[in-house]
This record gives sequence, C-alpha cells and structure tokens, in this order.
Amino acid sequence: MILIDGKRISQEIKEELKGAVLQRKAEGRKIPHLAAVLVGNDGASMTYVSNKVKACEEIGFESTLIRYDDSVPEEILLAKVQALNEDRSIDGFIVQLPLPKHIDELKITQAIDPLKDVDGFHPRNLGNMVVNLPGFLPATPAGVLELIQRMDIATEGKNCVIIGRSNIVGMPLSIMLGRNTKPGNCTVTLAHSKTENLAEVCRNADILIAAIGQPGFVTQDMVKEGAVVIDVGTTRVEDPSRMKGWRLAGDVAFDEVSKKASMLSPVPGGVGPMTIASLMLNTLKAMDLKGK
Amino acid sequence: MILIDGKRISQEIKEELKGAVLQRKAEGRKIPHLAAVLVGNDGASMTYVSNKVKACEEIGFESTLIRYDDSVPEEILLAKVQALNEDRSIDGFIVQLPLPKHIDELKITQAIDPLKDVDGFHPRNLGNMVVNLPGFLPATPAGVLELIQRMDIATEGKNCVIIGRSNIVGMPLSIMLGRNTKPGNCTVTLAHSKTENLAEVCRNADILIAAIGQPGFVTQDMVKEGAVVIDVGTTRVEDPSRMKGWRLAGDVAFDEVSKKASMLSPVPGGVGPMTIASLMLNTLKAMDLKGK
Repeated sequence: MILIDGKRISQEIKEELKGAVLQRKAEGRKIPHLAAVLVGNDGASMTYVSNKVKACEEIGFESTLIRYDDSVPEEILLAKVQALNEDRSIDGFIVQLPLPKHIDELKITQAIDPLKDVDGFHPRNLGNMVVNLPGFLPATPAGVLELIQRMDIATEGKNCVIIGRSNIVGMPLSIMLGRNTKPGNCTVTLAHSKTENLAEVCRNADILIAAIGQPGFVTQDMVKEGAVVIDVGTTRVEDPSRMKGWRLAGDVAFDEVSKKASMLSPVPGGVGPMTIASLMLNTLKAMDLKGK
Repeated sequence: MILIDGKRISQEIKEELKGAVLQRKAEGRKIPHLAAVLVGNDGASMTYVSNKVKACEEIGFESTLIRYDDSVPEEILLAKVQALNEDRSIDGFIVQLPLPKHIDELKITQAIDPLKDVDGFHPRNLGNMVVNLPGFLPATPAGVLELIQRMDIATEGKNCVIIGRSNIVGMPLSIMLGRNTKPGNCTVTLAHSKTENLAEVCRNADILIAAIGQPGFVTQDMVKEGAVVIDVGTTRVEDPSRMKGWRLAGDVAFDEVSKKASMLSPVPGGVGPMTIASLMLNTLKAMDLKGK
C-alpha cells in the first residue's frame, strides 16, 4: 500500500509558490494578498484560519486577518465583504465557515466578488466549474485533484464513488472528476445518506472518496482489492491521551482498509494540508485572472 | 410496460399555465412575455423556435421572435441580448443554440441576465442549482424531472444511470437527481464516452436516462428487468418514407427495450414536448422571481 502523503505534496506546492513569489518580486509585480475573515472563537475555525495565515507567511504572500465577535450583525459582515471586494490591495479573501446561526451563510457567500472568491463557494464559480469556464474550484476538492494528479493516479474510464454530497466537497468533486479533463473522465457515482446497498456501490469503485465526517465509516468490506482510497473526513474526536484532549479522525478505518487499498490517504496529513495548498494556488490564480 | 406520455403530460402543464394566465389577467397583472432569438436557417432550430412561439400562443403568453441572418456579427447579437436584458416588457428570453461558428456561444450565454435566462444555461443558474438556490433549471432536465414527478416514479435511494454528460442535459440532470429534493435523492452515476463496461453500469440502473444523440444506442442487454427508461435523444434520421424525408429517432432501441422496461418514454412524444413545457414554466417563474 502506497501512502498518499498530502503533507509532503502540499509542501512541494508551497515550494513552487515560494518560487512564484520570488519571481514576481524580481519582476517588480504585486505580491498576492489573501484576507481571511473569522467570526467567533470556534477552536477548529481558529486553527484553520491560523494555518492559512501561517501558510501565507511561509510562501511570502501578504495576509490580513479580520476578526469579529460571535455577535457581529449580518450587515456589518456584509459591509466588510463589500469593502474587501472593492479593496484593490486584496487579491482574494475567504470568510471562514461555519458562521453563527443569525448570519445567512449563503447570503455572505453570494456577496463575495466571484473574482476574489478563492474558496470557490460562490454559485458563479460552481457554475463555471459545471461548464468548464475559468474560475475558482472549491479548495478541498481542488486539493483532492492535485493529490490525484501528483500521485499519477489514472482516472480516465475508472469507476469513482464519492460518499457524501456536500456543497463544498462531494458534489463539486463529483462534477470535477466526471468532466472531460485530466484528471477527470471518471464514471462518477455520488453516494449519500439515502443510497441503498452502499457497501456494494463502494465495492465497484476503482477510486473511493469518503467525505461525510463520520470517523471510521469506510470499512474493509466496502473496498475493492487494489482500490485507491481518499479520505476527506476530518472530525475532532476526544482523545484523553493527547495534551489537547482530541485528535483528528478520518472517515476511513485506516488500519483495516490499508490492507486492501493500493493507495490510501491518511488523516491527518492527507487531504487536510492540500486544502490550504489549493487556497494558496487559488490566491495566485486570482491575480492571473485579473491580469495583475 | 407503461408509456411515459410526454405529449399528454406537457398538454396538462399547458392547461395549467393557461389557467395561470387567465388568473393573472383577472387580477390585472402582467402576462408573461417570452422572446426568442433565432440566428440562421437551420431546419431543426427553426422548428424548435416555432414550436416555442406556438406554445406561447396556445397558453396565452406574449411572445416575440427576433431573427438574424447567419452572418450576424457577434457584437450585434450581444447588443440585442443587452437590449433584451434591459427591456422591462420581456420577462424571459432564449437565444436558440447552436449558433454559427464565428459566434462564441458561451459569451452569449453569459451575457444573458440570469434572472431572464429561462433556458437555464447561464453559469450563475447552474451554480444556483448546485447549491439549491432559487433560479432557472435547464429546460430539458427540468422536463425530465416533471415527467418523473407526474408519473409518480420513486427516486429516493434508487440507482440512476445517466448516459451523456452534456452541459445542457446529462451533467445538470445528474446534479438535479442527486440532490436532497423530491424528485431527487437518487444514487446517480454519470456515464459517458470514456466509461468502461457501459452495459454493466447501465444494468445497475433502476432509472436509466439516455442523452447522447446516438439513435438506438441503448439495447435490451443494457437494461435491467423492470427499469424505468427515459430517452432524451432526438436525432433527425433520413426516412424516405416520410414526406419531409426524415424522422426523429431516440437513443433507445424502443421495440426491444420496451420488453424489459417497466416504463419507457418514446421519441417523439416523450421528453421533447416536456422541454417546451419547462421553458413555459420557467417563463412564468421569471415573473415570480422578480415579484411581478
């Protein structure tokens, strides 16, 4: 079994991006600038955002962190989005989800200028993806595609089963892997909570991707001998043996599935670091899309 | 085998729309107004557009047909799209595809105001579909969904295989049938030219939808006993026995598949008339979306 080492691959991408920044500097061009908006004090969200800011520093991108209290009114957040849309120094920005319940996430997502929407959540970018127009691909699915490409995993004509149809992972990934692109051209089946005979469906997969957020959900009996298995799940589970009291758990029962899969991505260290790498790639792309 | 009679169902929808028009009239509200732009003299396109105009007349919608010569420059067409976007008397409009080679179809499609895009081809509307936001669903897939709903075909948890991944039929249909909606909640597999073992994939389908434009492509051996088969293909094939010299042929070998399917939609008289019915439903919806 070959480990799909997202940590190493994301590091490769960061090195490439460092090079791109140095070259831009040498050419006297603008350095990419990412802004992140964080609302509240959710532990996971704070970690994600701080990792994004750290990645910017590592690569040499400029970054700005904007923080609001949990109680921030929706209109203040919308006004900030508008200001970031108009701020020419900011090339791309994200509003870290989830947001507090009194704020309409879809409203915020739609308020972001699609040309600065480096998370790729705006409906316009999702639509561009459907018809294969230039735009931003959502960061996590784009990270999965980078893994597939850099691990040289054959996709054309392969049966790919994706478990989970979320707007930010499963659904867009099903579109991206089914398109006539490389990687792509898979025969994609999108499975979800309503799927009957899920184990049987999964056993048809040459490439099995789990994105449901249920630790250990994918067991050995759901995996075809020699399949490529990619684990997008990242759930915090209690772990008193750790200083912080928790660890990240994937959707795949790693130990047993590793005996059947030909390739497998671990959690942590698989798709997770790739999401941040994709966000950085998107931020660089934001400049190209605008010809900066 | 039960015939899925799109002609009858589309007639039902038209009757309902007639009623809606009469009610709007009684309430002194605006009558829906659809405009269609036709470029050139392609026989099939002329037929489609004239059927759309006829449907408007039948229902009581206002309609406007705008024709251009094959040689119309792209900028003239773009200016017309802009004028239609701004014309408050027009509620929705379509630009009949395909367009002559010197015109960029995607450019035209993207120039249409998404709120008037009753064909549902604008990336913004496709993106809205992905995240389940209000918008226009593309007319042909929406027609297939109406057939499924009005024939009371169970979809939740069913295996649905769609053959063909075009931007206007297969791809959007795969999204629509996989969403958590009713109809919807299918386990959808999107098959295409690169799919291996296509017959085997198709035999897994409780609902099999063919949308590739290859007459007679789906044969008996590709169909599970008792499956629902929906034929979206409409290709003109030569037929010297007909006055006009051609007939419409579907993707499904009707005679042999009818022996295995529990339900089957014919060509003509299946999905075809539903496309126009959906367009009319979208035109009425255009007024609701704008609160007219």
